[in-house]
Amino acid sequence: MEKTRVAIVGMGTVGTGVAKLLLDHGDRTARHAGRVLWLEKAVVADLSKPRTIDLPAGVLTDRVEDVIENPEIKVVAQLIGGLEPARTITLKLLEAGKDIVTANKALLAEHGPELFDKARSLGRSIAFEAAVAGGIPIIANISQCFSANQVQSLLGILNGTSNFILSQMDESGADYETALQKAQQLGYAEADPTMDVDGSDAAQKLAILAHLSFGSWINWREIPKVGINTFHATDMQYAKQLGYRIKLVASATLINDQLELVVAPTLVKKGRPLAEVRGAYNAITVVGDAVGDIFFHGQGAGQMPTASAVVADMIDTAVGRTDITFRRLELWSQRDSGIALRATSLLSSRYYMRFCASDKPGVLAEITGILGRNQISIASVIQHEPTTVESALGTAANQVPIVIMTHQAPEGAAQKAVEQIQQLETVHGPSIRMRVLEK
Amino acid sequence: MEKTRVAIVGMGTVGTGVAKLLLDHGDRTARHAGRVLWLEKAVVADLSKPRTIDLPAGVLTDRVEDVIENPEIKVVAQLIGGLEPARTITLKLLEAGKDIVTANKALLAEHGPELFDKARSLGRSIAFEAAVAGGIPIIANISQCFSANQVQSLLGILNGTSNFILSQMDESGADYETALQKAQQLGYAEADPTMDVDGSDAAQKLAILAHLSFGSWINWREIPKVGINTFHATDMQYAKQLGYRIKLVASATLINDQLELVVAPTLVKKGRPLAEVRGAYNAITVVGDAVGDIFFHGQGAGQMPTASAVVADMIDTAVGRTDITFRRLELWSQRDSGIALRATSLLSSRYYMRFCASDKPGVLAEITGILGRNQISIASVIQHEPTTVESALGTAANQVPIVIMTHQAPEGAAQKAVEQIQQLETVHGPSIRMRVLEK
Repeated sequence: MEKTRVAIVGMGTVGTGVAKLLLDHGDRTARHAGRVLWLEKAVVADLSKPRTIDLPAGVLTDRVEDVIENPEIKVVAQLIGGLEPARTITLKLLEAGKDIVTANKALLAEHGPELFDKARSLGRSIAFEAAVAGGIPIIANISQCFSANQVQSLLGILNGTSNFILSQMDESGADYETALQKAQQLGYAEADPTMDVDGSDAAQKLAILAHLSFGSWINWREIPKVGINTFHATDMQYAKQLGYRIKLVASATLINDQLELVVAPTLVKKGRPLAEVRGAYNAITVVGDAVGDIFFHGQGAGQMPTASAVVADMIDTAVGRTDITFRRLELWSQRDSGIALRATSLLSSRYYMRFCASDKPGVLAEITGILGRNQISIASVIQHEPTTVESALGTAANQVPIVIMTHQAPEGAAQKAVEQIQQLETVHGPSIRMRVLEK
Repeated sequence: MEKTRVAIVGMGTVGTGVAKLLLDHGDRTARHAGRVLWLEKAVVADLSKPRTIDLPAGVLTDRVEDVIENPEIKVVAQLIGGLEPARTITLKLLEAGKDIVTANKALLAEHGPELFDKARSLGRSIAFEAAVAGGIPIIANISQCFSANQVQSLLGILNGTSNFILSQMDESGADYETALQKAQQLGYAEADPTMDVDGSDAAQKLAILAHLSFGSWINWREIPKVGINTFHATDMQYAKQLGYRIKLVASATLINDQLELVVAPTLVKKGRPLAEVRGAYNAITVVGDAVGDIFFHGQGAGQMPTASAVVADMIDTAVGRTDITFRRLELWSQRDSGIALRATSLLSSRYYMRFCASDKPGVLAEITGILGRNQISIASVIQHEPTTVESALGTAANQVPIVIMTHQAPEGAAQKAVEQIQQLETVHGPSIRMRVLEK
């Protein structure tokens, strides 16, 4: 049987998983690829580090040149994280005639245009199923399966770490810090969780999906984003009482040829599939104008789900499917899709708002008056007993929490109204404003 | 821009949807395919029938020879339902050098080996995304995206008509006949709904998915199946009280290199995604040994979702991806996967059982005694008040319904026990036995 020689650069968790699939299940990949994917080299930074996998003699090396200079190696799983040296190594591998498979979403979100131009100019390809949503094959589905559609919207939970933390808070009533510590203990969050909890990771993934779906090349930094550490555990309980769960939702919606993008903690109606995504799982709803809504749910990270996506890409690359798809997609090319980002102030949503106000007459009238003057219509108001807020929010005894659910309102107006309410002498501490998914 | 000339044979609901996508959104398909998919011919049985679409002059014809004899036409969406003349026309199209895209699952389930052998021997391809689960791209996902996995199980709702009827019964408390009539009025069920409600349609789709996932070529008639008209609306209410919904579940599970296949009304725990699939939607969970569980949910039928799948296949065929995939998959080939069907008597499950028994002492002891002698362990028993069963089941006034949930038990033992219980003088009318999904 024909052999395609492949290499792995970066033997972290995912790299080790890829090696396991190639070595332990070579018959399977051979059957699906019609050829053996032969692991020729696995490049590591430190040869002395203990490994959880036994590699055949001669495979392990700390010299990436062993891959670059070996013309027999055709496909490389480039699994180094971060921007450098990942970028430089990827460019060198492309120049050496290798097709690339990668799981590095930060690299694509940051250097996509450069890397894809280079690959195109050299007649090579870059596959990246594993870069978004781990085991969920969302890249293949959007770029191939829905190709008869204009995607109209994407809505998803794209970051497993933050979803794990939010699930913890929801299920145990834990506050953010406690839930984060548990996530770190269990290996779901890194020592520095910033990119996961502040929405950056989800914004990078959303930028990639939006590029695939709408053709527009978006700088992920321009996507409005709010982290999950911006509200109180008590807000989660209030949301629950109202019939919602709080999720870090990434969404992209096409409105009159403009793209509305946002990553933010969002109230999602209980029972709706997106609300029930637990732990480190990811989920995405794609709405196409022909296919309607298709919902995907699966493990968004982890060794074997991500390795499954990498090896599927390696097979696709070895058999020639990736080459065809890559050339058709024109990813990160100069072609202008004509789709512009919608200004943040135009974003429109229902809102959950929570204020801490002095427990005296006229306060609610002041707050609702400001909302009214900003043309924001109120759907419901809950004023909780002072005792609740004291213990839960740690505010003074003469304060009450006021929870307001609004009807649809522009982001600009909602922001302005909350700023004005904050300036009231009778309103104390941080005010909270979160989007609410309508359906 | 390059043109690939295509044709549609069969302008029913789906064929008309395909023509709409090709004609109204030609720019979109051209962008994704890198070439124009040019609709050269659309073959209908009756030229005089009114159409909901205006086709360009010269496209509509009632002569399939206009397609067969035109060497410029490369890709044909063969959308005639049923077995003949669909089979003969498909063979002629293949012989004339056309690549085929089809939505006809019955044709594949029945004549798959003949058609695929013919296509292979002629160097042609057959794509059939639209044959299973409408808009959900389950064929592409199993055959490409999960190619690094051994699929371990499939679990799905694959028939929208029966799911619509069950949802009606669940939501409104309607009985089967009333729900079926509503489905027929709304166009979700055909005048003769047999294939949909008796599980045949789901079994054909399951046979196709199991072939893709496990390599074994299964005659769909050998799949044990139970229809949705085999239980009473009251059972749905009892199931609900126990925390379950009744769904027509199709499942394939690999156990020690043997395949367990079944299509049957099944109790699914409320809140579990499969239990919450409403109306004419479909859903499938695929479990792979690397990727874990991936859940898909979307419209399982309908004009545009199905047309979306057909046109995606036409694009894949025009650009060459289908050719690569088709040759690798060895579908319906002579290759033996070594996976045999597990005997029905070995199937194992938890069971919901419901009996109507005389309301006198010792009856419950007789029933539970028979279960015990068949090694079936009882998880819970509910004996309802006589008044309930009278009105709901229409049985005599001195009878009570007894609902029993068992622990895991072999199908053979469960069947035998129910037969023995039925023979008791104190047990009346039909007894009900349904599988229960454990997780």
